[in-house]
Amino acid sequence: MANPTAAMLVIGDEILSGRTRDANMHYLAGELTKQGIDLNEVRIVSDDAPAIEAAVKALSDTHDHVFTSGGIGPTHDDITADCIARAFGAHIDVRADARALLEVHYEKSGLELNDARLRMARIPDGAELIDNPVSTAPGFTIGNVHVMAGVPLVFQAMVASVLPSLTGGRPLLSQTLRVDRGEGDIAATLAALAEDFGDLSIGCYPFQTNGVFGANVVVRGTDGGRIDAAMIRLAKEIEL
Amino acid sequence: MANPTAAMLVIGDEILSGRTRDANMHYLAGELTKQGIDLNEVRIVSDDAPAIEAAVKALSDTHDHVFTSGGIGPTHDDITADCIARAFGAHIDVRADARALLEVHYEKSGLELNDARLRMARIPDGAELIDNPVSTAPGFTIGNVHVMAGVPLVFQAMVASVLPSLTGGRPLLSQTLRVDRGEGDIAATLAALAEDFGDLSIGCYPFQTNGVFGANVVVRGTDGGRIDAAMIRLAKEIEL
Repeated sequence: MANPTAAMLVIGDEILSGRTRDANMHYLAGELTKQGIDLNEVRIVSDDAPAIEAAVKALSDTHDHVFTSGGIGPTHDDITADCIARAFGAHIDVRADARALLEVHYEKSGLELNDARLRMARIPDGAELIDNPVSTAPGFTIGNVHVMAGVPLVFQAMVASVLPSLTGGRPLLSQTLRVDRGEGDIAATLAALAEDFGDLSIGCYPFQTNGVFGANVVVRGTDGGRIDAAMIRLAKEIEL
Repeated sequence: MANPTAAMLVIGDEILSGRTRDANMHYLAGELTKQGIDLNEVRIVSDDAPAIEAAVKALSDTHDHVFTSGGIGPTHDDITADCIARAFGAHIDVRADARALLEVHYEKSGLELNDARLRMARIPDGAELIDNPVSTAPGFTIGNVHVMAGVPLVFQAMVASVLPSLTGGRPLLSQTLRVDRGEGDIAATLAALAEDFGDLSIGCYPFQTNGVFGANVVVRGTDGGRIDAAMIRLAKEIEL
């Protein structure tokens, strides 16, 4: 059986302007790979309601799971929850269960639970809350979309809350062979290998270090024995 | 007049599997911001022909410029050029001008210009070559799509070749104010500021360092005077 598929939607002007380097995508990619869920696509859009709504709809229709990051804080540019609600045609307002979480948290911290902070309790009807052990304000899952914070520590905690509940597939395994030759020299060998091992993915990633060209050949798949077989043949054929 | 818009398409399994952290997106975002071209969307797809073709078409239709990275090397998984040609309904084959560049390069380096390396001279009819001062094999521009390599050094060199030929807009300027308070405390102030400065983008990016919560408020726009005015009001209202 094929692994479940996933897409990620990163929301935030600060990534697209080059101000911030996204860290969540790389993290999620690694976690999904371990769990046997195939991340097939990532989109990054700005804090723009129609763009967020259209992207969520498109990705939700074509993947088993969608993970979003960013735009669920207390400020005016945090519009993700409302956009997702619209994409699913769901009513959204401050919800009692989320509000209760925030009340306890701000009571303890001595900060005021003002209108801005209450925005973080806006949860669509029918959504399930995602636990946030770092800063309390929850994410949520609606349909096949998991809505999470953009701050990396919080994002990672929410991923840890969500992933155990998802049915994974066979973890993607990989082995890498570094070859200190130009990839043009080994391309024919790799093409034949990819042909004979159609169940594996054979990738070739060139690099250049101190003027020397080389390539990392990465063999990926879910069957460790097949990966071993491909690596043994590869090592023989390129005569390391 | 509004700035030209751009999208980026990153092609590569190695990014989606979490093996490699993409560096090109962050680089391009910074360069486009300097030139006054607004990067509105990024998509990352795997080495999958239908996915590449569909993404190029969608992005090309909705943005002034599309920049792609990855998948134009000599190996079997380098399928970008053929996908782009199909997206534009253009014929593609080894082209004499690109072949001539490779012949000189491999003659000099003493390496064989074999069939695999010749694949890097596959250029769609009607496309314009993009200079590659690092490793010779060219990128190309067809329609509004600029097709570039995934190796960061080569990608950056190609961006430097392409950008001067594009008409930019007014560079996006920004100023940042660090506030050592939770963003919930300043949210109402920011919302009112965003309302009164509709020509600027006011972003709020929370952080957590050693258990202390704070936020960076970033004010972006093309008019430096307006940004100054917004920052002065902001500093006053949150009483630093």
